[in-house]
Amino acid sequence: MSADEATVAEGPLALVCGGGSLPLAVADHVLARGRRVLLFPVRGAAKPEDYAGREHTWVHLGQFGTLARVARPLGCTEIVLIGWLTRPSLWGLRPDFLTLKILPRIAKAFLGGDNHLLSNIAKLVEEQGFRLRGAHEVAPEILAPHGSLGRLVPDADDLANVGLGLDYLAAAGRFDIGQAAVVAGRHIVAVEAAEGTDGMLARVATLRATGRIRAPRGVLVKAPKPQQDRRFDLPSIGPTTVAAAAKAGLSGIVVIAGETVVAEPDALREAADRAGLFVFGASGPAA
Amino acid sequence: MSADEATVAEGPLALVCGGGSLPLAVADHVLARGRRVLLFPVRGAAKPEDYAGREHTWVHLGQFGTLARVARPLGCTEIVLIGWLTRPSLWGLRPDFLTLKILPRIAKAFLGGDNHLLSNIAKLVEEQGFRLRGAHEVAPEILAPHGSLGRLVPDADDLANVGLGLDYLAAAGRFDIGQAAVVAGRHIVAVEAAEGTDGMLARVATLRATGRIRAPRGVLVKAPKPQQDRRFDLPSIGPTTVAAAAKAGLSGIVVIAGETVVAEPDALREAADRAGLFVFGASGPAA
Repeated sequence: MSADEATVAEGPLALVCGGGSLPLAVADHVLARGRRVLLFPVRGAAKPEDYAGREHTWVHLGQFGTLARVARPLGCTEIVLIGWLTRPSLWGLRPDFLTLKILPRIAKAFLGGDNHLLSNIAKLVEEQGFRLRGAHEVAPEILAPHGSLGRLVPDADDLANVGLGLDYLAAAGRFDIGQAAVVAGRHIVAVEAAEGTDGMLARVATLRATGRIRAPRGVLVKAPKPQQDRRFDLPSIGPTTVAAAAKAGLSGIVVIAGETVVAEPDALREAADRAGLFVFGASGPAA
Repeated sequence: MSADEATVAEGPLALVCGGGSLPLAVADHVLARGRRVLLFPVRGAAKPEDYAGREHTWVHLGQFGTLARVARPLGCTEIVLIGWLTRPSLWGLRPDFLTLKILPRIAKAFLGGDNHLLSNIAKLVEEQGFRLRGAHEVAPEILAPHGSLGRLVPDADDLANVGLGLDYLAAAGRFDIGQAAVVAGRHIVAVEAAEGTDGMLARVATLRATGRIRAPRGVLVKAPKPQQDRRFDLPSIGPTTVAAAAKAGLSGIVVIAGETVVAEPDALREAADRAGLFVFGASGPAA
């Protein structure tokens, strides 16, 4: 079977694009494999200038009908959700008719944890005859490789902190909390929940400045939750993560290779080398 | 044996007093039992005006020799550390000769977790012939009782949040992190580490104001870590905790009865009733 036949068999891929540079990076990787991509930037999340040069259809979060109407006649059966989306206010949604029917379920999902919200969205997409794929499945190039993403590597002290952090994330994972923690001096000094990784790192910077954290350096550890639906909710890092980790006085970042999305890997590498931080992809625990 | 004989047998109690009202409350409870109390307010933590009317000896954190010199000739063999102490800078310590000898161990403890720091202090106190007691052992009146500390009680929704929070704290406890979490809409939205309970509650207030937490209400859950040395490191709440929980939009606070210190219980009860929050002492897990 030639690449062209594979493309026909798969049909075009619908990409629902949130903010950041990752959606277009995914689009380019998929296009490079010879598959057609239908772009659906989300209003309020994606930047119009990023999509000016490409064919696209704007959608509001909640307008699943628009996507179905455009994508289905083109033979599209697969959807990827990618890019950072602010959890929208229920009142900020502009639901179309199809979405209205399922709104009660979405509302319920909003009150649950992240995993609950996302798996509900997955279910309703699949009820409409589409298959939800992970960005990393259609564009594995976006995943963190094994080893260092820059010049520096963690030292023995860093690795001891990393071990403690990964143990904690494994133990806390079943509670559907965050995917990250900061460990300094063998002590977990910050745990991520609703504030997100950047919020947590900003807190570490403040706690260090005010003397509440005295251990030198420290490591940001990110890992997917054990039960996490890896199709659309992998941990991610990017150059801003490196900048926030540097401000927090950390010596580096450890993620799980093959289970973490890296946005703008070149810029990230450069930022890490410049700031003197390591960014390291560790092997995940044996499944 | 009469109460007087018991007092003689026990000798006076040395109370190393940090900030807040709890140290003097403990002193009064111990005095009411007929036992003599030697007050050692810590400079920079205790307020001079609080000790003006009572016999006392100021100490700097790290001046263990001063305490030993005053307390030992009076037949004192028991010490209680009580009240909030900012983790001091090593350079802010004014070590006396005795403390200097053990400074390397203290320095090491500073780089470990809280439990590590505190159990090191306990060890060195006991090496000097004193016994470290918990404030709750000499004044059990300071502990949270079973049931509500005010008019309100948690409802079924609150209790479901509480269950999730207690499960999480039990699972995370062995990592020597914080002793508290906030659960809203069956989702753990904040976990305490180095920032402390008030810092965590301030974060929840901000995340709610910015729409990152949408679930209504929610509960603050506090519980001692499983391996925690209960002699000098019990979780504590007070009127300021109630105020911070109210600002965070929570419906109440749940602590473990008999394993949580309540500062200013009357003021706390009044603050909770005024703010419409419950404060509830739940039974701890079976040991």
